[in-house]
Amino acid sequence: MFSVKEYEERLKKTKMKMVESGIDVLLISNPSNMYYLTNYNAWSFYVHQMMIVTLEDSQPIWIGRHMDATSVAKTTWLDENHIISYPDYYVQSSERHPMDFVVKIIDEIGHSKRKIGLEMDAHYFTALCFQRLLNGLPNAEFKDATVLVNRVRLIKSDQEISYMRKAASIVERAMQAAYDTLGTGVRECDVAAAIYQAQISGLDECGGDYPSIVPMLPTNDNTSCPHLTFSERRYKKGDFLTIEIAGVYKRYHAPLARTLALGEAPHHVKELSKVVQEGIEKTLEVIVPGITAEEVERTWSEAIAKYGYQKSSRLGYSIGASFPPDWGEHTVSFRTGDKSILKPNMTFHLMPGIWYESYGVEITESILITKKGVEPLTQFSRDLYEKPIIETAL
Amino acid sequence: MFSVKEYEERLKKTKMKMVESGIDVLLISNPSNMYYLTNYNAWSFYVHQMMIVTLEDSQPIWIGRHMDATSVAKTTWLDENHIISYPDYYVQSSERHPMDFVVKIIDEIGHSKRKIGLEMDAHYFTALCFQRLLNGLPNAEFKDATVLVNRVRLIKSDQEISYMRKAASIVERAMQAAYDTLGTGVRECDVAAAIYQAQISGLDECGGDYPSIVPMLPTNDNTSCPHLTFSERRYKKGDFLTIEIAGVYKRYHAPLARTLALGEAPHHVKELSKVVQEGIEKTLEVIVPGITAEEVERTWSEAIAKYGYQKSSRLGYSIGASFPPDWGEHTVSFRTGDKSILKPNMTFHLMPGIWYESYGVEITESILITKKGVEPLTQFSRDLYEKPIIETAL
Repeated sequence: MFSVKEYEERLKKTKMKMVESGIDVLLISNPSNMYYLTNYNAWSFYVHQMMIVTLEDSQPIWIGRHMDATSVAKTTWLDENHIISYPDYYVQSSERHPMDFVVKIIDEIGHSKRKIGLEMDAHYFTALCFQRLLNGLPNAEFKDATVLVNRVRLIKSDQEISYMRKAASIVERAMQAAYDTLGTGVRECDVAAAIYQAQISGLDECGGDYPSIVPMLPTNDNTSCPHLTFSERRYKKGDFLTIEIAGVYKRYHAPLARTLALGEAPHHVKELSKVVQEGIEKTLEVIVPGITAEEVERTWSEAIAKYGYQKSSRLGYSIGASFPPDWGEHTVSFRTGDKSILKPNMTFHLMPGIWYESYGVEITESILITKKGVEPLTQFSRDLYEKPIIETAL
Repeated sequence: MFSVKEYEERLKKTKMKMVESGIDVLLISNPSNMYYLTNYNAWSFYVHQMMIVTLEDSQPIWIGRHMDATSVAKTTWLDENHIISYPDYYVQSSERHPMDFVVKIIDEIGHSKRKIGLEMDAHYFTALCFQRLLNGLPNAEFKDATVLVNRVRLIKSDQEISYMRKAASIVERAMQAAYDTLGTGVRECDVAAAIYQAQISGLDECGGDYPSIVPMLPTNDNTSCPHLTFSERRYKKGDFLTIEIAGVYKRYHAPLARTLALGEAPHHVKELSKVVQEGIEKTLEVIVPGITAEEVERTWSEAIAKYGYQKSSRLGYSIGASFPPDWGEHTVSFRTGDKSILKPNMTFHLMPGIWYESYGVEITESILITKKGVEPLTQFSRDLYEKPIIETAL
């Protein structure tokens, strides 16, 4: 947990953005934002819950399911007056909806006629939640505040950076576990199990945490499908694969992807890997505070265009503390049109994955913008890894 | 993958429910429902995607991000005319939204003035998705169809049951791994890592899959918080804990929870465990096809009330194939007011967890409704497990 002072500072910055946006009351559905403001970290986001920040109150109010209220009291800095729970008969009911309960509370505490910010595109803020709030609060004025808190999260504190460094050490260990486990006859799920073991146990000095995205390790022509997870298939000599995983410490993520082969990789995979590596190096050379997100992408595009390649998807995105189903912060992206200016203590997943119809290559880095430039958080060779085949007499 | 015939049968049942509900076009956001109808199984649900079922078309249409289209082509029974992708600049953009693209497609294929069903309360169908559809399709008539496909999923095919039996064997192995790893000085994350290793590697004859909920293993007074995950804390003699996990095979889940202690458990935990076990036995005795969901709960309530206990949350819920953040099907719940009639090949997580202010007990079963009664899918002792302490000289 961070100090109460740090949480208060985060809340203060949130309120400043609320004032800028003309919002009196902010309703937070995004579990990453709840965690950021209060340390609330339970797997309770599969039922509806809500955090209410008002300009006047010195603490957010949590509203959620009765059985989860104890975990809020035990793990956050909220006092008991700021923890309100609804009975279990509101859960997944065709008659009652948790937002009806939230409406009642908002009315009771006198905010039903105010300017209310909603995280309109947050994963767990469903259409029905919205409809119930609209119906229940006819005199409120609603505004979209989807990434309001996310934008506060962009620049990390030193303690947050120290967590991400631990996450980076964990992902190095997890990627090494994958390298060590890969072999002919081994199943994809066995490599995934070794990755998980390393991710979750973490290091001797700090335990791991679950990642917001599961290991993705497509093989051969499935490398054209970046979001396939893993199967029961057994590896054969000549297979190539991409592995995209993250290390996590107290919800802070450091993602990493690499490309591997069992034995020799196909020529086109080798060629593309070299181009991607050179592109990463060129890109890292130009990153300094003060440049824009789109400039980062432009450098990359030029570096690979020289060899006749192009990448149609964004080159990366802001990262930090997060909950499933995504480890991205949904704010700054390295792509044309994103004119956000890079600042020290921002953190990104530099994601130069390239996917064609029949193959793909992924070699990525979690990076920290420093005062003078940029620093990869992980130290792990970017080379395409061609694992020697050990011939065994069967 | 199931046979195309089975997918067509599922689609036919979905269309029948659409007709019953007065719906011409169904928009599906729930990844579990996408998977159920087409075998689509990639971790792509963190960006917006949509499946369109119309009464006329013999296949659903998938609309999603360009980089994911290849995985739909490779893993589902949809032909290329039913796979449509949007460019990457729609992803997490403040200017463009994927639902604007979906609107365009719905208009192009002539459905903009029809009766359209929406999964209003599905996790990834956000308020903004809804608003963009409303704005983009002013002549459509929208209806809530949140659990329309979920209700088709209620009764499992024999192949689905066989998957859940494999999942049950996997969760037995994962729970045993937790029992074996627990010890003084061991960290919570080390037990979680052992659980994961077993869940993901699965069995020799079938590989595991990732569960929709991560291992939850709160200790001591945190057992009052069912949805806390795990920490770096080291176990001490006298600790007691609950473990709730699932085994998964091809997305089909078999959850299981148990209560453990390192050495002797506190008296009140032992007492409550006995009551819960007796309650489970009494409940299993009455379950037969034809009774209602609320009757199951009533038997349980009476069994524990005899000893002065009560449980305020539902006693269980329907389970099957699912994706994060939940392994429940969101249809039938064992609770007062749910008059759904139990039928053969329905499957449930019988979830008699009881949580007080300072402690909780969880002993649960995944169960199958058979032609004549009920069958627990797992064979794992329900006794409170008091692990002997091995004294080592340090």
